[in-house]
Amino acid sequence: MPQTSVRGQQMPSSPIRKLTPLADKAKQKGIKVYHLNIGQPDIATPQMALDTLRKIDRSILEYSPSQGFFSLREKMVAYYKKFNINVDADDIIITTGGSEAVNFAFMSCLDQGDEIIVPEPAYANYTAFALGAGVNVRPLVSTIESRFALPSIAEFEKLITPKTKGILICNPNNPTGYLYSKEEMMQLRNLVKKYDLFLFSDEVYREFCYTDEHYVSALSLEGIEENVILIDSFSKRYSECGIRIGALVCRNKKVCENVMKYCQARLSPPLIGQLIAEASLDASEDYLRNTYEEYLERRNFLIEGLNKIPGVYTPMPMGAFYTMAKLPIDDCDKFCRWLLNDFSYENQTVMVAPASGFYTSQALGKNEARIAYVLKKEELQKALFVLEKALEQYPGRIG
Amino acid sequence: MPQTSVRGQQMPSSPIRKLTPLADKAKQKGIKVYHLNIGQPDIATPQMALDTLRKIDRSILEYSPSQGFFSLREKMVAYYKKFNINVDADDIIITTGGSEAVNFAFMSCLDQGDEIIVPEPAYANYTAFALGAGVNVRPLVSTIESRFALPSIAEFEKLITPKTKGILICNPNNPTGYLYSKEEMMQLRNLVKKYDLFLFSDEVYREFCYTDEHYVSALSLEGIEENVILIDSFSKRYSECGIRIGALVCRNKKVCENVMKYCQARLSPPLIGQLIAEASLDASEDYLRNTYEEYLERRNFLIEGLNKIPGVYTPMPMGAFYTMAKLPIDDCDKFCRWLLNDFSYENQTVMVAPASGFYTSQALGKNEARIAYVLKKEELQKALFVLEKALEQYPGRIG
Repeated sequence: MPQTSVRGQQMPSSPIRKLTPLADKAKQKGIKVYHLNIGQPDIATPQMALDTLRKIDRSILEYSPSQGFFSLREKMVAYYKKFNINVDADDIIITTGGSEAVNFAFMSCLDQGDEIIVPEPAYANYTAFALGAGVNVRPLVSTIESRFALPSIAEFEKLITPKTKGILICNPNNPTGYLYSKEEMMQLRNLVKKYDLFLFSDEVYREFCYTDEHYVSALSLEGIEENVILIDSFSKRYSECGIRIGALVCRNKKVCENVMKYCQARLSPPLIGQLIAEASLDASEDYLRNTYEEYLERRNFLIEGLNKIPGVYTPMPMGAFYTMAKLPIDDCDKFCRWLLNDFSYENQTVMVAPASGFYTSQALGKNEARIAYVLKKEELQKALFVLEKALEQYPGRIG
Repeated sequence: MPQTSVRGQQMPSSPIRKLTPLADKAKQKGIKVYHLNIGQPDIATPQMALDTLRKIDRSILEYSPSQGFFSLREKMVAYYKKFNINVDADDIIITTGGSEAVNFAFMSCLDQGDEIIVPEPAYANYTAFALGAGVNVRPLVSTIESRFALPSIAEFEKLITPKTKGILICNPNNPTGYLYSKEEMMQLRNLVKKYDLFLFSDEVYREFCYTDEHYVSALSLEGIEENVILIDSFSKRYSECGIRIGALVCRNKKVCENVMKYCQARLSPPLIGQLIAEASLDASEDYLRNTYEEYLERRNFLIEGLNKIPGVYTPMPMGAFYTMAKLPIDDCDKFCRWLLNDFSYENQTVMVAPASGFYTSQALGKNEARIAYVLKKEELQKALFVLEKALEQYPGRIG
């Protein structure tokens, strides 16, 4: 039997994936599991997007252009303008989810052995794609005490080597919910300019910013127009993760040229997903406002509820639909297994995402969990109650 | 401005893609272009698959499982049995098109610097994915004189080095239409077993075999069960290239484990595409038979017509919907540009795929083109006539 690849073996398995079979077993035992662990919104997809499916009048479901439909890209140009992102349709490349945009960005900009600096905790799949591309991630840890603010520029500079080719941020942030301030974005801009780095900016949660502080897109920063690669996705904005439509947006023609070669190799992004994405861009203002208000209310409810549980602390997240919480426990991976294997309260338990999946160092995040608010308020309330009971009973409780 | 990656720059652009703007220009001038260059079938998608779209009754278009829906994989198990491919649902991993299956197969089995042997001419995107994975392709040329039969095993053995990790075949073959015989498959089996190699086998055209000789799946070969990675796709079989649903099928658990990590990183394959694929598997026998007979008739018509054109030779392809033809020309890339830029006959021209895109060596295939029969017979007839006129007038005609 031939040996599989070393890189394949080294690819991390996400801690959540390891917990999923345990959750399935709990459910088989009749236990209700509150999923605070996932990023799958429970909000309905816009009705006009769903209606599109019924109206598809094609006899052949054929390939679409490798770059994506022009009509979709043109509509996105108008959408981006509202966020001070000025691009034209040629700067937009439709991808199979935001994931493919990350992958193609790395493959197009970086070579084997190159380094990127990523503030942590960070979305685990960046590391997976970096590993696939042979790129080394240099993590820069932000802390719950500072609400996961951007680490100081001096800290970034300490990590810069001749191999450093880029910085990756997620704004608003998954998993922390942090929104970078205008000042932080300007600091990043100066750093990127000074060292002539790529700035990969994942901004898929831009619709969900809950503070007076404005969201500042990396692509709106002056003087680094050709350094920024924007990662985008329709998944979270319109609750349509399944259509697998994202985008890579970049004003650097050489980068786009490379990306297009990868796009051509995979032929085309999903046809029907693009039709749905295009229809979604026509969703009413009401749809987005209602979604926004729903998340805002849940956030306020969840954060207040979490901070009332003895020993729990979470900062107020400013965007996205996640928060990172510090729990009075020895080891969150153990705690999660215990929650699913050994605990239940009135036939209920909760599942959260252990923070270990968001840090490179195994020593970090042991007592932290990512908690998503993609459940209705009534469900969140029950989940909070069950979590409190669990923390009371957990044998590995600390403090 | 930061430098883009070397690997991105090295990625080839396909010759067809370079010709597309010329074809667009010809159309703008009012010239009808017969597309003999593409692999997009003009046959209708099965009606029950199209009906599925209208019946999708979901309020959220959410993520599906990273491995793909179990119900789809279970149906595929039954489908494969008809081809003597005995696998279970766990051995099947749903991918975003066959392209993603190729990519994940390489990333999961091969490391930077590993080598695979690929009989040429070959589908250009294998090389693109190999390059992306840092894998070196060692081409082994088959010739039009031998109808593009499998090169001898002695030729394969000459290319084997300590870095050789696998062999890739496409069967029935794109671009040649060749179908490997039982004997050839047994020879490959023995070679794979002797050197303990991976055998990547792209069998997306299995429905389209026109000879008495049976299609033999690599996954049906005894003794190399854990060496074979089958690449599959719904695109061609059901004329639904746009749904982007393919599969990687493998009985090697370690390979599947690696592949699943890449699958998890990209979260999930397209949701709606999977629903359509599942419905397509219920397409009537009539649908597949009619499609088959349509291609068979077109093949016979095209091959006869091509061989009647003075100076043209093409062997009879045994499968898929392509043939490789030798043309009496100096350079097919030049000929293709001339066809679109400088030639028209009664406001018509043709577009073919230059064979240069299917060979690693730039010296090969200069007078060959891939010609697809994805046009109706009447259109093929006109296209053949225009091609004949073009060859009469082409300044670079040889012989």
